Amino acid sequence: MAEPVDNSRFERGLEFFQSHNAEAAEAMEQALGDIAPDLMRYVAEFPFGDLYTRNTLDLKLRQTATLSALACGGHIAQLKIHLKIARKIGLTRDELVEIFMQLAPYAGFPVTINAVLALKEVFGEPHPTDTQEC
Amino acid sequence: MAEPVDNSRFERGLEFFQSHNAEAAEAMEQALGDIAPDLMRYVAEFPFGDLYTRNTLDLKLRQTATLSALACGGHIAQLKIHLKIARKIGLTRDELVEIFMQLAPYAGFPVTINAVLALKEVFGEPHPTDTQEC
Amino acid sequence: MAEPVDNSRFERGLEFFQSHNAEAAEAMEQALGDIAPDLMRYVAEFPFGDLYTRNTLDLKLRQTATLSALACGGHIAQLKIHLKIARKIGLTRDELVEIFMQLAPYAGFPVTINAVLALKEVFGEPHPTDTQEC
Amino acid sequence: MAEPVDNSRFERGLEFFQSHNAEAAEAMEQALGDIAPDLMRYVAEFPFGDLYTRNTLDLKLRQTATLSALACGGHIAQLKIHLKIARKIGLTRDELVEIFMQLAPYAGFPVTINAVLALKEVFGEPHPTDTQEC
Amino acid sequence: MAEPVDNSRFERGLEFFQSHNAEAAEAMEQALGDIAPDLMRYVAEFPFGDLYTRNTLDLKLRQTATLSALACGGHIAQLKIHLKIARKIGLTRDELVEIFMQLAPYAGFPVTINAVLALKEVFGEPHPTDTQEC
Amino acid sequence: MAEPVDNSRFERGLEFFQSHNAEAAEAMEQALGDIAPDLMRYVAEFPFGDLYTRNTLDLKLRQTATLSALACGGHIAQLKIHLKIARKIGLTRDELVEIFMQLAPYAGFPVTINAVLALKEVFGEPHPTDTQEC
Repeated sequence: MAEPVDNSRFERGLEFFQSHNAEAAEAMEQALGDIAPDLMRYVAEFPFGDLYTRNTLDLKLRQTATLSALACGGHIAQLKIHLKIARKIGLTRDELVEIFMQLAPYAGFPVTINAVLALKEVFGEPHPTDTQEC
Repeated sequence: MAEPVDNSRFERGLEFFQSHNAEAAEAMEQALGDIAPDLMRYVAEFPFGDLYTRNTLDLKLRQTATLSALACGGHIAQLKIHLKIARKIGLTRDELVEIFMQLAPYAGFPVTINAVLALKEVFGEPHPTDTQEC
Repeated sequence: MAEPVDNSRFERGLEFFQSHNAEAAEAMEQALGDIAPDLMRYVAEFPFGDLYTRNTLDLKLRQTATLSALACGGHIAQLKIHLKIARKIGLTRDELVEIFMQLAPYAGFPVTINAVLALKEVFGEPHPTDTQEC
Repeated sequence: MAEPVDNSRFERGLEFFQSHNAEAAEAMEQALGDIAPDLMRYVAEFPFGDLYTRNTLDLKLRQTATLSALACGGHIAQLKIHLKIARKIGLTRDELVEIFMQLAPYAGFPVTINAVLALKEVFGEPHPTDTQEC
Repeated sequence: MAEPVDNSRFERGLEFFQSHNAEAAEAMEQALGDIAPDLMRYVAEFPFGDLYTRNTLDLKLRQTATLSALACGGHIAQLKIHLKIARKIGLTRDELVEIFMQLAPYAGFPVTINAVLALKEVFGEPHPTDTQEC
Repeated sequence: MAEPVDNSRFERGLEFFQSHNAEAAEAMEQALGDIAPDLMRYVAEFPFGDLYTRNTLDLKLRQTATLSALACGGHIAQLKIHLKIARKIGLTRDELVEIFMQLAPYAGFPVTINAVLALKEVFGEPHPTDTQEC
């Protein structure tokens, strides 16, 4: 492992990941820690430590880019992780449905349908107040 | 051509397209009008007439989904059309750079680089006030 | 939901979907009806109401395009739905195997193999007369 | 180069390729002959010598699978080659437009638009009798 | 089925497949043998009989190309088959982790993570000597 | 821009990039420097500073993974940059042809053909001694 002189990216990134989806951060550490510890480090450092913490873009816009890339790439497992982060950031269930419907003309209906089904699984049954906040 | 009983979707969609990127709406009509007129009609009706005019999602979020899907799919010609629409909607050059950088960890750096180069081509040289508004 | 002035596309599309794969139409309505009712409406309206009912192309050719797009995109769940529609349209098991084999040089063997395995699952065991009609 | 004991696949395939698009067969031989002669041989042998000459599927259906895979994969150069083959096989300009429109709901409008523009370039301006035969 | 005059490609390819992953060769024969026997034949003939047995490229380099293509395409089932072949060829667990990490900047982290998880499943728990040989 | 406390990744990465393809490093700095300086920094830091300089994998294997990912993703501009890096690393023209041919059964012939044509453009005409070293 290349010697990390600067741990601030790692710590900053891991904190963002943990505070927005503690369960996934723990599960990924469990899954990758023994076989590919540097991969776990890069995940914490680059997307979370470098990008998510830039404070140069509204987090809802940033998360919309992430969700769209994951849905279009067919990465449903990672999409579910980021749907929970999206909820923490403040995107409502209805906003997320709209975002995924918007992908249909550009990437096809199956991308939209798979993303909406993942959303349904992650968010569970809709609550009466769900369109206000979730 | 299936007889369109209801022209409101088409008219609503075309108006949105024209008011946000008149040049592209005209060019697409020129390119598709003779060989595939129904395709031009569907483009106006479904993405523009059905989705863009829903008023159920902040247009910046909606456009971020579109731009992400086009960048991830490698559709540079369509991305350029939608970068001009993005500018009209109010996304700044700096916000767009951030959106495309956010795609790198999920779809790879080439997607980000190609999108930023398209952005540069569409927006031209940066102006002193460009981070304020574009 | 944008007010649908014209219900003919929706009704025409839903009827096509139901008459070619009633089980999938019902399941999709169940899955999407509560969380994304407009998505279900768009699915009925655009691919089924606009395209499948155009009567401007032999349905076997039209369905071959659909199946190829779904197989190449890795959308196995949607491919299974459309394999049942393909059977209803009159494509035989052997024709479908040939269509999927034809994808191998252009999209790779894994696309072909996954599609053939989906076909096997949908069609079950071959019957003695299966190459005549299915 | 692995010693080819059996030349029948190569000869059968090259003949199919040449008789359906002589110009492309010649151009590919020119482009690949010096740097990757075995690649040219595999192209002649597998897709053309093995698949196109099977006589187990209507050629219009077979070509629809090829065209769909190429359009969905964004392979415009190869799509143009196969559009000329499609014309030779007997697919009309209007049938091809329909096939590409059918891809829109499953792979997105950009795939359809790019394919239709390639078609327009390959087929040139429509002729009065073009919907009858081309 | 086109009459195979020359069986040497098939026999050579099947032998390579069987000697590097007998279980997968048997399973694929079982799965495809009844519904698409020619597909099984092409798999043995083209990738294995034509390419893997060329002796013109170090097998570790050749297998890295295969693994990268499968990971980038999201073909996890085929990736697992080829991870066992990779082990037989002599690629160690640690080399495979490095190869998959190298894909992250060009195809995105989800491609890398999914490939590493497949690797973990195929190779099981790491052994003390695993970095020496596996 | 997030304040970089540690410049060693950037410097190490940029040096690797410059020493393996000075022209591309310069061109990318020119293209991205004004519009997205942090993107240029991330390119230097993550793929080059973190991965290429790990010394944990034979560089030919590492570069094969990069080239395969770029070819499969259709990223021809980036592929050309990395073909020059590949040459510097010691991969010969013939090895590169073999690597790209190996992609055909897993990602389709168009991916292989496009990569070989890019290779031909980058390497120019073959020299008598080219299979020995390039």
